[in-house]
Amino acid sequence: MGKEEPQPRSLTIQNINPNVKEAKYAVRGELAIKSEEYRTKIAKGEGKDLPFESVISANIGNPQQLDQKPITFFRQVTSLLENPLLLEKEDVLINGLGYKKDVIERAHTLLKDVKSVGAYSQSQGAPGIRESVAKFIEERDGHSADPKNIYLCGGASAGVNALMNVICASPETGILVPIPQYPLYTATLALLNAKVVPYYLEEQSGWSTDVPGIREALSNARKEGIDVRAVVVINPGNPTGGSLSADNIASVIELAAEEKLVVLADEVYQTNVFEGKFHSFKKGLRDLQTSDKNKEGKFDNVELASLHSISKGMVGECGHRGGYYEMVGFDEEVVAQIYKFVSIMLCPPVIGQCLVELMVNPPKEGEPSYAQYKEEYDGIFKDLHTRAMALYKAFQEMEGVECQYPQGSMYLYPTIKLSDKAIEAAKKANKGADEMYCMELLDATGICIVPGSGFGQKEGTLHFRTTFLAPGTDWVSRITAFHGKFMDKYR
Amino acid sequence: MGKEEPQPRSLTIQNINPNVKEAKYAVRGELAIKSEEYRTKIAKGEGKDLPFESVISANIGNPQQLDQKPITFFRQVTSLLENPLLLEKEDVLINGLGYKKDVIERAHTLLKDVKSVGAYSQSQGAPGIRESVAKFIEERDGHSADPKNIYLCGGASAGVNALMNVICASPETGILVPIPQYPLYTATLALLNAKVVPYYLEEQSGWSTDVPGIREALSNARKEGIDVRAVVVINPGNPTGGSLSADNIASVIELAAEEKLVVLADEVYQTNVFEGKFHSFKKGLRDLQTSDKNKEGKFDNVELASLHSISKGMVGECGHRGGYYEMVGFDEEVVAQIYKFVSIMLCPPVIGQCLVELMVNPPKEGEPSYAQYKEEYDGIFKDLHTRAMALYKAFQEMEGVECQYPQGSMYLYPTIKLSDKAIEAAKKANKGADEMYCMELLDATGICIVPGSGFGQKEGTLHFRTTFLAPGTDWVSRITAFHGKFMDKYR
Repeated sequence: MGKEEPQPRSLTIQNINPNVKEAKYAVRGELAIKSEEYRTKIAKGEGKDLPFESVISANIGNPQQLDQKPITFFRQVTSLLENPLLLEKEDVLINGLGYKKDVIERAHTLLKDVKSVGAYSQSQGAPGIRESVAKFIEERDGHSADPKNIYLCGGASAGVNALMNVICASPETGILVPIPQYPLYTATLALLNAKVVPYYLEEQSGWSTDVPGIREALSNARKEGIDVRAVVVINPGNPTGGSLSADNIASVIELAAEEKLVVLADEVYQTNVFEGKFHSFKKGLRDLQTSDKNKEGKFDNVELASLHSISKGMVGECGHRGGYYEMVGFDEEVVAQIYKFVSIMLCPPVIGQCLVELMVNPPKEGEPSYAQYKEEYDGIFKDLHTRAMALYKAFQEMEGVECQYPQGSMYLYPTIKLSDKAIEAAKKANKGADEMYCMELLDATGICIVPGSGFGQKEGTLHFRTTFLAPGTDWVSRITAFHGKFMDKYR
Repeated sequence: MGKEEPQPRSLTIQNINPNVKEAKYAVRGELAIKSEEYRTKIAKGEGKDLPFESVISANIGNPQQLDQKPITFFRQVTSLLENPLLLEKEDVLINGLGYKKDVIERAHTLLKDVKSVGAYSQSQGAPGIRESVAKFIEERDGHSADPKNIYLCGGASAGVNALMNVICASPETGILVPIPQYPLYTATLALLNAKVVPYYLEEQSGWSTDVPGIREALSNARKEGIDVRAVVVINPGNPTGGSLSADNIASVIELAAEEKLVVLADEVYQTNVFEGKFHSFKKGLRDLQTSDKNKEGKFDNVELASLHSISKGMVGECGHRGGYYEMVGFDEEVVAQIYKFVSIMLCPPVIGQCLVELMVNPPKEGEPSYAQYKEEYDGIFKDLHTRAMALYKAFQEMEGVECQYPQGSMYLYPTIKLSDKAIEAAKKANKGADEMYCMELLDATGICIVPGSGFGQKEGTLHFRTTFLAPGTDWVSRITAFHGKFMDKYR
């Protein structure tokens, strides 16, 4: 065989795992890659021909890549966990570096639990950290929580992955997923060759969960022979920014009890709530279990897995990959299989586990680090809210754009109505009109957002998702200016 | 329905994913859980009725849970990455804490690359860190390496998981796996519902890779209709402690070229080599590609993925979950699918990525931190070697035990010959004889090791795996004493 004819390979796009090919994950797709190319070009000083001076990554909830500073208390503690030898120089820490007593104490406590952040922990996570998580849940909900039900994980994504791997038994297994949704869910179901059973959120009522709509989706799926096992709820919503009421949550749990569904409650944005307060599924479930409605034990065995993360909220430590899920109502033999599954990947990153502890057990009033913690935490919250409102106002003034009032999470997900001419042009370019819009926005302004097709949207509607994490609100006017030109171009 | 009759659940052991049920992972199985119970009991002061005073976890390569101290340079840098505000107090760092100039410089360089260790990086890993990895490979092998071929990952396990997910296309896909093996491979294949095609290592020649044996296993598997796509090689060996020669490696690559197999080279123990030197598969491949043997381009498209990790070696930072794999010879469309797969899980832990950089680019001669780094590194190496030899000597003196000379990795994997009476007793207890041996060892001495059945062994043989990480060599005599009694008990 001559050199011209290359040797055949073992792997080709034709013969690899079709489930991987099937999976879609737009948040880090073509647009994101192109925006990184622009960023590199500008960094190298080769961006002079570009119509913008900086790239704004509004495609992904990555607070610390943008403006958000880590919380000082957290990072002072983790610096000591990384180098415990510093604890031998308490005097320098306190007088030279301004570390407070509670920072030092917390480092000691965590090191006693994990021994070294360089050592594997138990697969389920360090025992002391799980105790702190249980305490946090108890205080949040007013109902007890058991550390043995807590599984620490490398970000909520890893938790979702473990849970779905155990749930999905065959190509007929289905899971109810809200549309729009964070694409982790559909991507993971594709990888597991299981079925997405979509249910649509109600845009007009702040993206609330429409329980009759879930019932209908469920009943249709079952008619088609799909074995529906679970329902995913993302609250506060990603990409929608919606926030569910206690009643809405109770109705989902009643449905789960009646229809024998596991509830997967993605609550990673639980501290990002601007309107009203956050209601947890765990509290919703325990409230029902202890109410008159449970006379016949209807709610006793509802299986609920609720997820939380250090990546979002005012913590924003996504690079550290930390989170937890609490499982209640699960059969013990099933839990043992989840344990085995997570043990194959050994353990979640230990420094991320420690950040989970810091998140759920921050400085309390009266403790030395409290004032600074509170100031930083509140400052981040305020900034997020300010930017959300600025973006919301801008969207209200943009032609053909409609946006729900910002309630929570880190995102807005406006509807855009584009002209037939724009839709035609997109078709010719073999793109969705929302994709074309986002690509033109990137090329014109350097702002990277994600088209609605990446999350799902009702047939015939178009959306995009943007974070409101980027510093300042100046970039918002870049969007407004682009939008006007885009509308004119395709008028 | 009365309270006595519980509501049915969605998930039962009968209806969950059968592939998860099928997966086995003994390293963290029943014995490990029992040993943790003993440890907790002792910690609570309730261990007085136990015949031992401490638990020795020799079941898992977890250096820092035992004696191994982290390398000071690494942890000084990571402490600054965790709290970059410290960089504003250079004077205190240097004069108060003894941090050297190169520590501070490295922190600056890494922060420039990742911006914050709390931010997501590119899914493939931070660009600057991948450049350092490529440089390290170039220096190690004398052949060039390209940062775009480097994928950082959350420990080598995450890399293996990504690669196998893409390779395994159907229940007929098979991967050649050495027996004995680290059970990650068989567990992952079980999860993916693909086929393990076992090939046996040659115990009598230091657990070398028997290429004719692989050929035979391959040909038999193909006859059975298995679509064999890849061959796993673990070098230095886990659990075997073997270390492959350059010739042995070249033969595996020749086989891969002829039979169109991806080579998955698990090289996480590459610095744990006591005899001779480590030969990388990458060098083996490039040597062949640039040799006369490649006249007809036979080796041009050999697909090799080689994995390395911060968890093992003298680094021992397994709790930080860091590693990388280099892919060469892969089709670009296949690589794009691997990229998409890893992007669904967002990115590897960023502080773990930084530790990869520190591992591959440690202080050099002449730099301020070099002397201490060298002393610590060499000290850890020497201790490991000393303990390996102590364990080896003890095994040589134990009745019915035969152990290969320790060549590398962190493990020994001796054969044990047990009496028919012992084998009978185990059968009655519904256990393998190796399992019973390990359980009795744990109950009698608090030492936790893993039975050979957890890694695989030739029919009719029995083994166990022990790490040589536990401090001192005193615990070795606990094993010797137990072994004598066990042999007498079943004589």
